[in-house]
Amino acid sequence: MPVAPPFMLTTGPVTAYPAVLNAMARPVLYDGHPAFQQFYRDVVGKVRQAMRSAALPVILQGDALLGLEAAAASLIGRRDVVLNLVSGVYGKGYGNWARRHGGEVIELEVPYDEAIDAEAVRRALLDRPDITIIAVCHHDTPSGTLNPLAEIGLLAREHGAFVIADAVSSFGGMDVHPDAAHVDVFVASAAKCLGATPGLTLIGINDRAWARIKANPDAPRVSFLSLLDWELASEPGRPFPVTPSLAEFHGLDAALDLYLAEGPEKVWQRHARTAAATRAGLAALGLRLWPKSEAIAAPSASVFRVPDGIEDKALRDTLLDRYGVLVSLGRGFTAGKVLRIGHMGPGAEPLLAVTAIAALGAALRRLGAKGDAGVAVDAALASLDGPSPAAVVHDVSREAVHAD
Amino acid sequence: MPVAPPFMLTTGPVTAYPAVLNAMARPVLYDGHPAFQQFYRDVVGKVRQAMRSAALPVILQGDALLGLEAAAASLIGRRDVVLNLVSGVYGKGYGNWARRHGGEVIELEVPYDEAIDAEAVRRALLDRPDITIIAVCHHDTPSGTLNPLAEIGLLAREHGAFVIADAVSSFGGMDVHPDAAHVDVFVASAAKCLGATPGLTLIGINDRAWARIKANPDAPRVSFLSLLDWELASEPGRPFPVTPSLAEFHGLDAALDLYLAEGPEKVWQRHARTAAATRAGLAALGLRLWPKSEAIAAPSASVFRVPDGIEDKALRDTLLDRYGVLVSLGRGFTAGKVLRIGHMGPGAEPLLAVTAIAALGAALRRLGAKGDAGVAVDAALASLDGPSPAAVVHDVSREAVHAD
Amino acid sequence: MPVAPPFMLTTGPVTAYPAVLNAMARPVLYDGHPAFQQFYRDVVGKVRQAMRSAALPVILQGDALLGLEAAAASLIGRRDVVLNLVSGVYGKGYGNWARRHGGEVIELEVPYDEAIDAEAVRRALLDRPDITIIAVCHHDTPSGTLNPLAEIGLLAREHGAFVIADAVSSFGGMDVHPDAAHVDVFVASAAKCLGATPGLTLIGINDRAWARIKANPDAPRVSFLSLLDWELASEPGRPFPVTPSLAEFHGLDAALDLYLAEGPEKVWQRHARTAAATRAGLAALGLRLWPKSEAIAAPSASVFRVPDGIEDKALRDTLLDRYGVLVSLGRGFTAGKVLRIGHMGPGAEPLLAVTAIAALGAALRRLGAKGDAGVAVDAALASLDGPSPAAVVHDVSREAVHAD
Amino acid sequence: MPVAPPFMLTTGPVTAYPAVLNAMARPVLYDGHPAFQQFYRDVVGKVRQAMRSAALPVILQGDALLGLEAAAASLIGRRDVVLNLVSGVYGKGYGNWARRHGGEVIELEVPYDEAIDAEAVRRALLDRPDITIIAVCHHDTPSGTLNPLAEIGLLAREHGAFVIADAVSSFGGMDVHPDAAHVDVFVASAAKCLGATPGLTLIGINDRAWARIKANPDAPRVSFLSLLDWELASEPGRPFPVTPSLAEFHGLDAALDLYLAEGPEKVWQRHARTAAATRAGLAALGLRLWPKSEAIAAPSASVFRVPDGIEDKALRDTLLDRYGVLVSLGRGFTAGKVLRIGHMGPGAEPLLAVTAIAALGAALRRLGAKGDAGVAVDAALASLDGPSPAAVVHDVSREAVHAD
Repeated sequence: MPVAPPFMLTTGPVTAYPAVLNAMARPVLYDGHPAFQQFYRDVVGKVRQAMRSAALPVILQGDALLGLEAAAASLIGRRDVVLNLVSGVYGKGYGNWARRHGGEVIELEVPYDEAIDAEAVRRALLDRPDITIIAVCHHDTPSGTLNPLAEIGLLAREHGAFVIADAVSSFGGMDVHPDAAHVDVFVASAAKCLGATPGLTLIGINDRAWARIKANPDAPRVSFLSLLDWELASEPGRPFPVTPSLAEFHGLDAALDLYLAEGPEKVWQRHARTAAATRAGLAALGLRLWPKSEAIAAPSASVFRVPDGIEDKALRDTLLDRYGVLVSLGRGFTAGKVLRIGHMGPGAEPLLAVTAIAALGAALRRLGAKGDAGVAVDAALASLDGPSPAAVVHDVSREAVHAD
Repeated sequence: MPVAPPFMLTTGPVTAYPAVLNAMARPVLYDGHPAFQQFYRDVVGKVRQAMRSAALPVILQGDALLGLEAAAASLIGRRDVVLNLVSGVYGKGYGNWARRHGGEVIELEVPYDEAIDAEAVRRALLDRPDITIIAVCHHDTPSGTLNPLAEIGLLAREHGAFVIADAVSSFGGMDVHPDAAHVDVFVASAAKCLGATPGLTLIGINDRAWARIKANPDAPRVSFLSLLDWELASEPGRPFPVTPSLAEFHGLDAALDLYLAEGPEKVWQRHARTAAATRAGLAALGLRLWPKSEAIAAPSASVFRVPDGIEDKALRDTLLDRYGVLVSLGRGFTAGKVLRIGHMGPGAEPLLAVTAIAALGAALRRLGAKGDAGVAVDAALASLDGPSPAAVVHDVSREAVHAD
Repeated sequence: MPVAPPFMLTTGPVTAYPAVLNAMARPVLYDGHPAFQQFYRDVVGKVRQAMRSAALPVILQGDALLGLEAAAASLIGRRDVVLNLVSGVYGKGYGNWARRHGGEVIELEVPYDEAIDAEAVRRALLDRPDITIIAVCHHDTPSGTLNPLAEIGLLAREHGAFVIADAVSSFGGMDVHPDAAHVDVFVASAAKCLGATPGLTLIGINDRAWARIKANPDAPRVSFLSLLDWELASEPGRPFPVTPSLAEFHGLDAALDLYLAEGPEKVWQRHARTAAATRAGLAALGLRLWPKSEAIAAPSASVFRVPDGIEDKALRDTLLDRYGVLVSLGRGFTAGKVLRIGHMGPGAEPLLAVTAIAALGAALRRLGAKGDAGVAVDAALASLDGPSPAAVVHDVSREAVHAD
Repeated sequence: MPVAPPFMLTTGPVTAYPAVLNAMARPVLYDGHPAFQQFYRDVVGKVRQAMRSAALPVILQGDALLGLEAAAASLIGRRDVVLNLVSGVYGKGYGNWARRHGGEVIELEVPYDEAIDAEAVRRALLDRPDITIIAVCHHDTPSGTLNPLAEIGLLAREHGAFVIADAVSSFGGMDVHPDAAHVDVFVASAAKCLGATPGLTLIGINDRAWARIKANPDAPRVSFLSLLDWELASEPGRPFPVTPSLAEFHGLDAALDLYLAEGPEKVWQRHARTAAATRAGLAALGLRLWPKSEAIAAPSASVFRVPDGIEDKALRDTLLDRYGVLVSLGRGFTAGKVLRIGHMGPGAEPLLAVTAIAALGAALRRLGAKGDAGVAVDAALASLDGPSPAAVVHDVSREAVHAD
């Protein structure tokens, strides 16, 4: 079996919490046993609690891409006009599913180091009153950028459109929740900021969305891609539409317990602190964040430009081979241009920012680049010791809530 | 977390081997790390070894239903004429997917306590030379019956048709493999006779099938349901189309190691012995197997009719609450009519047949039915101590091989 | 790593509960960390709760023999006259330690298939008013016999003598507790009826015993054998005298949680039912219990005479190799004469009695002996389905309590 | 259950390797089962391989203090004249056991920040030709200092004396082995540099020592403290003198596999590199090592003086509460004067030196002390990137070997 490096700071999959892995070794129980069904309902209830949603969420039996595809296939029908917001590789990719299932897809695209401007969304909705669905990636992980989800959600609600949000790599690491952000189908993962393993998607679906999906004749039924099949899965005595991934439920349950016991606000703080310290260190190393401004940089990943004259893979490999630090390469458009340091789950540990910055400074020097690791570590430590960076993280939602 | 009963003898999901659960607690490694990619290739290689197939199999990131649906969606195109063989609930259900993706679906149906007759398949193929695909469920678990897969495979090959086989609850528990049975798309599970947890489908696909799938414009691409996306996933340096379920791979790897180390033939023997002893006991209890003849009863499940005057759930609950033995209810057409004792993975332990029969005898008596547990246990023990029941299990394939 | 057989019905070490093994995989924490010290106190508190004792117990960092030796070395001084009660191999062995540390040792010995007679103890105390300490093995595991601990305790208390009791293989499997039985030093194990792994001894010590030990100049101090070193270990801020076996504490904690959550009375019932059913089966097989009467047979082990003409190891090996059932051989005086079926922890599962009896019947037949497995299974099942055998188990203590 | 801090850099017990904890969750097997006995022999064989010893080592069922006490009790008889070498708290403590079991104890003591001078040992042996046993602590952990074990061993061998060495916190982290160092009884631990959990002592005993122990009438027999009881424990078919701590054996086995697979030399390098980088950082922070010269500082712990005006516990708590780094306080004479950073097992990860130094620099600043974390991190990184510090670690043994 492969052995994880000492410092796995990837953007997902991430190191799972020990308690999660431990839970996955518990004996599994037949899914038809009433005790499992009760356990299933308990886990769904904890997801609801974590999502702060009025409606019961759905858990699909595969990692986040399953949920994202299922959301598109279920909500988007052939008569829909979809506004697909594109600020990165993942947002762009979602357009393919929107086109596959929808009638027309309009794309509002910004450079991949920027965030969608809510004002532009407002204009697009004015232009095309027939837009019925907005698809948006909250944290476009290949870029490490956040979009103003709650503002977009509010605009959509006012317009009467539905919102599908990819919150896969932000949920659990910051203050983002479906109801508060007016998101109708909210796709999250067990394997990112919650620190569980990949294998389950968590999907918040509100009542409006359920009604719409039921009315969509093309929504998958009797399919692994179906949301509808799971609508009543929490009701006692019903067989599950497909066999749940039992061990992944054990792990998810442990992850939710950790999240709720530590306290969501504290978990977000941990992510925010780690990110802020990392960015202070990156700046001190003379490295530029990929996101155009730090205000749009996600607290769960720090994406920075690889300096001129250095190859991304050489830097990645030096970090790993010399220092035991594993970070992610870019992806799609950002491939070759950036490296990405994840701050997710157990990786969102403030001092790990310092560890990563020290290794990065040393690796750059080793590859002939400039970079003063000591100064950068000082900057990261100063950030850690400074006031809480929470404001940055909460802004977006807070404004939206105020406007509500 | 729910606690498993002392004796979990279900038809799947089943008790996982301790070594499998243990492996699932191992730290997970980023899927982009070369060490994980090598591990992935190793696991795929072990699946190939276990499947005794020439081509590399595909592992999909969800339990068996994902693989079954993906097989239908990938291989069956709108011009195909599909012969769907129906001898039970699962076979019947497959017709829905065949109709969804195919042009025409012809069903050859037998009563759900019988097996498909190879001669009838031959006639069906003569009748309709335009049949391009045969779909067959090898072990229709709700009935506990086996179909003559290798014979059907041979007829299909002679006819020029493709075969999709659901070997989910037979593979790993008996001598059934894709190439030997001339099956083109062979769908198996980690969670049944291999004794791992639900979360992965193992799919044997031969070269003919790959060519056909590639030629099918409707085969899913860029989808959780896609087989094509995974065709080259074993090649070094390629990103995975979706994030693999890392922990499930750890578990599957351990399950394959156990299977190959114990020796497939010995594992099948264990399944066959447990089944034979259970059936000897059932007969001595005066219970009738659901399958019309024992020759078509699968070695991985013993399905018996609940005697008149007893309610299936009452018997199931008595077994569980009084004796700690959990068995499966019937499903669909067999629901209410039968109980099903699984012999899969660690449950395929010969003495467990005796345990189950003793509990069943006592439970029947408690519910006012006849049944001499002592006599039944004697019968089960006599079976255990008798000659190997292997012949029963191999017959079907062996004939086909001889005919080859 | 060695693989456990499917049915491990030994008299200790026994199969550990899955939740115990799972807990042992939790990351360990430095013993000097306040959180570990709090955890340590919590575990000691749970042991006290399980022991129903007024004083805090001590946990020694080694399996039961450490505790037994430490008890002798600590309580018994060179001026003590020890009455060592011998009804089996373990009681006999304790005399060696009594002689090593004490002034004079008087032995009251009965045949090893009998129990100590409380009346004889009364007479011995009358004979020798200078007896200061009584050592007694509650469940002499090589014989599977119980001694009337509470009656002896009461006699000792009236006499003014101290009692050291070996309750290693009875505590947790029946109603036996130090205060109720007037035992001053009560030695129990994590690895028998509590279903944890060997590595810790649990020792109940009352205030009288602490005073006595402190007054004993020969009691070990600054030693792995010391009880005194641990007297104040539960006080906050104290370093531990030796490093605690951290992982074993995790396992013990889980075992105590299981014990207290299931409910001690229910756990004892489970042990008693399994024992009673096993004995009904043994009798029906024509096998004789080693204990002269079933009234003195412990609920945690069924020890039976190997029939004439059969070699103990041959029978043991047949059970293991043919049926996957592992039982214990005799030990010392009972070696070669008996086999021992443990009913401890997860092995105290009533239907396992039936499993074991069936295998035993079949194994005997295979070795040419008589024995009708079916009839024996019927007898075991009739026992399981009969009224609760609890009376048998509680008698001894209850009488003593009444007399109190 | 208590939760370990993110960075546990204690001097033992230490973070266990994940593979070790994982192994401890494996089902346990009755110790009387031949498969366990074979496994036991395999583990003893791996300990021998790791110890590079000619004779089979003994594994005692308790953490290191058990082994140290057992060694004193077994080897030291009432006619022995013991030269106890004292360079720290642990060496001093050993004198108590030497006095308990021996005839006369001569102590050669140096200040606790110095190492024993081999020349002084030579003189002591000349002075007192009747010295029969030398007791020496190789790495006196409260001081973090190494004694020249191989030189002392050679002098003892020439003199005809026996050597008992406490290699508990050095073995597995550097090049120290009983035969090469002429040590007769060599006490090591599973829980320090090997990265397993506390619960077993590993004791190398050569043939001379066995002969001596057998000739010692006071050597413990039939005791938890006995070495003799275990002499033949590796012979097939023998019952173990006490029940082995089964789960700890699983963990130790995994730890030995890791050690031998990574390669002892590489493991020592990892320890040496981490120590050297830590010390470079400490120096740059203006902190003084407790050991008088770095040449005598052990590679498995960096012990430094807490600067004037700072309280040791305040610094420890700041490191833990603010940065998640747990280090050890001093002990005995060094308590209140030093903090100790462990580099053992998984904690011997070079980049962790940087992490620790950064946190330490920040914590000092927070407590009002001077200290430039950035400069210190640069120094630690420069050390990591410099040539191998191996020479430092091997010197002592190498000289002795040359002299041989």
